[in-house]
Amino acid sequence: MVSHAIEVKVRWSEADPAGIVFYPRFFEWFDLATEALFESLGLPWAEIFPRYRVVGVPIMESSARFRSPVHYGDVVRICSTVTEVRAKTFRVEHELAVGERQCAAGFEVRAWVASPAEPRGRLAATPFPEEIAMRLKGQGGIYA
Amino acid sequence: MVSHAIEVKVRWSEADPAGIVFYPRFFEWFDLATEALFESLGLPWAEIFPRYRVVGVPIMESSARFRSPVHYGDVVRICSTVTEVRAKTFRVEHELAVGERQCAAGFEVRAWVASPAEPRGRLAATPFPEEIAMRLKGQGGIYA
Amino acid sequence: MVSHAIEVKVRWSEADPAGIVFYPRFFEWFDLATEALFESLGLPWAEIFPRYRVVGVPIMESSARFRSPVHYGDVVRICSTVTEVRAKTFRVEHELAVGERQCAAGFEVRAWVASPAEPRGRLAATPFPEEIAMRLKGQGGIYA
Amino acid sequence: MVSHAIEVKVRWSEADPAGIVFYPRFFEWFDLATEALFESLGLPWAEIFPRYRVVGVPIMESSARFRSPVHYGDVVRICSTVTEVRAKTFRVEHELAVGERQCAAGFEVRAWVASPAEPRGRLAATPFPEEIAMRLKGQGGIYA
Repeated sequence: MVSHAIEVKVRWSEADPAGIVFYPRFFEWFDLATEALFESLGLPWAEIFPRYRVVGVPIMESSARFRSPVHYGDVVRICSTVTEVRAKTFRVEHELAVGERQCAAGFEVRAWVASPAEPRGRLAATPFPEEIAMRLKGQGGIYA
Repeated sequence: MVSHAIEVKVRWSEADPAGIVFYPRFFEWFDLATEALFESLGLPWAEIFPRYRVVGVPIMESSARFRSPVHYGDVVRICSTVTEVRAKTFRVEHELAVGERQCAAGFEVRAWVASPAEPRGRLAATPFPEEIAMRLKGQGGIYA
Repeated sequence: MVSHAIEVKVRWSEADPAGIVFYPRFFEWFDLATEALFESLGLPWAEIFPRYRVVGVPIMESSARFRSPVHYGDVVRICSTVTEVRAKTFRVEHELAVGERQCAAGFEVRAWVASPAEPRGRLAATPFPEEIAMRLKGQGGIYA
Repeated sequence: MVSHAIEVKVRWSEADPAGIVFYPRFFEWFDLATEALFESLGLPWAEIFPRYRVVGVPIMESSARFRSPVHYGDVVRICSTVTEVRAKTFRVEHELAVGERQCAAGFEVRAWVASPAEPRGRLAATPFPEEIAMRLKGQGGIYA
């Protein structure tokens, strides 16, 4: 399985008046982590979305459990693993920690969605190109 | 069970380059909707958090399924229902729709957490005061 | 001159660990206020941008002086006035207050920018259509 | 004069439906850049704010001119220079570029503000401690 880790330093703007990170920010980090995972596979979003004429990899489902608060100034390590690749969707699991302290864990299920023929046209998941599927599975490409 | 609905008009800042709302924003709306639900019960956060010396109602778990995209300019209706009240935690379920179109559904589990004795002290869930618990259950208070 | 006022209730996500609103949020409110001013003139952005094939009204310059902090829970009144309409640009001045307390004042200069012929093509300001210019000046249209 | 530069990679969440960065984000980057400048001087905010019992360095004035749009995927270089240090305030000028392309320039004036004696007490600027003033001026401290 493909894994990748990033570190994010908590920004002042990400902490709330209780001094802890506002929880939707964790999902922003999930998104950053998934994007970085693609980049680590040689699949940067800014290049592959236009190349394959997809709107992106929109979210279908996301979930998180929060165990321990994260504060302004903390450095958060996010470890992300692709745990499933289906024909049109994939699942990434994320673990967040500050040092040795586990702070949160969650997952995303995302789809490969073609650009609609017209603006605001219906969005529909479409099968992954072979190259993308193989890389998400940790096969072929530059890692073959 | 206690329910409440709010409407949110999608801000330009909430939509991404694909023209659709970036998914962590849905969790920001969950948070707004839960806050508005408390306010509808006569429990505005800005008043009750200092009064009861709690840091707030931090999230323990949150999850969402996304069915249909939301665009800039849409008016989103969020209907929120308290589906469970335990000694120290509660669960709110949220349904999001644009007109008749169901866009997302999810839930939050949150805890009642006392302010720590010292800054950055350990956060621990504590039992709801009777007044809060009764109102979340739709009993007593101004609704008795 | 055309004026319009909106009220914004400060969201939990907009306040920082010092308990006050993080300053870039004021510029988000400027943007909301300018958009609402257009809507008050019968010119909702979600309709007119595609109709006139413009990318929007991108910012050229913005500035603010901050006099008094704004807190979570405050209701902020933003009064916006179009103080200048040139061939391709306009200027809006914004005053922010919480009750009688003046909190900030600033301005935006924005341009009317046509959609580029190709994605990421060069953005260039273009003259306002007569209808838009007249309404921004408080003349004609539904207000004649 | 003290200068420091950082690089920020544009996040998906920072670009709008026009495909360009929503302008209040530039002020978020100004804030990040000022914080990084302090850190480069051995003055990390997460340490010095509690140590000196200040709420932080709240903004008094901020302004920017926007010359060229920034897109998702761009790497933005922000060069920040302390151009003035007064008894209770300082001014930082910021230049933003993507590669050789100048995108924006602006400034911040911020104050050194003591923590109020009570929550939501009045905020008042107070003179910089000698150590802070000297470092902002590029004198003394670890750089003597």
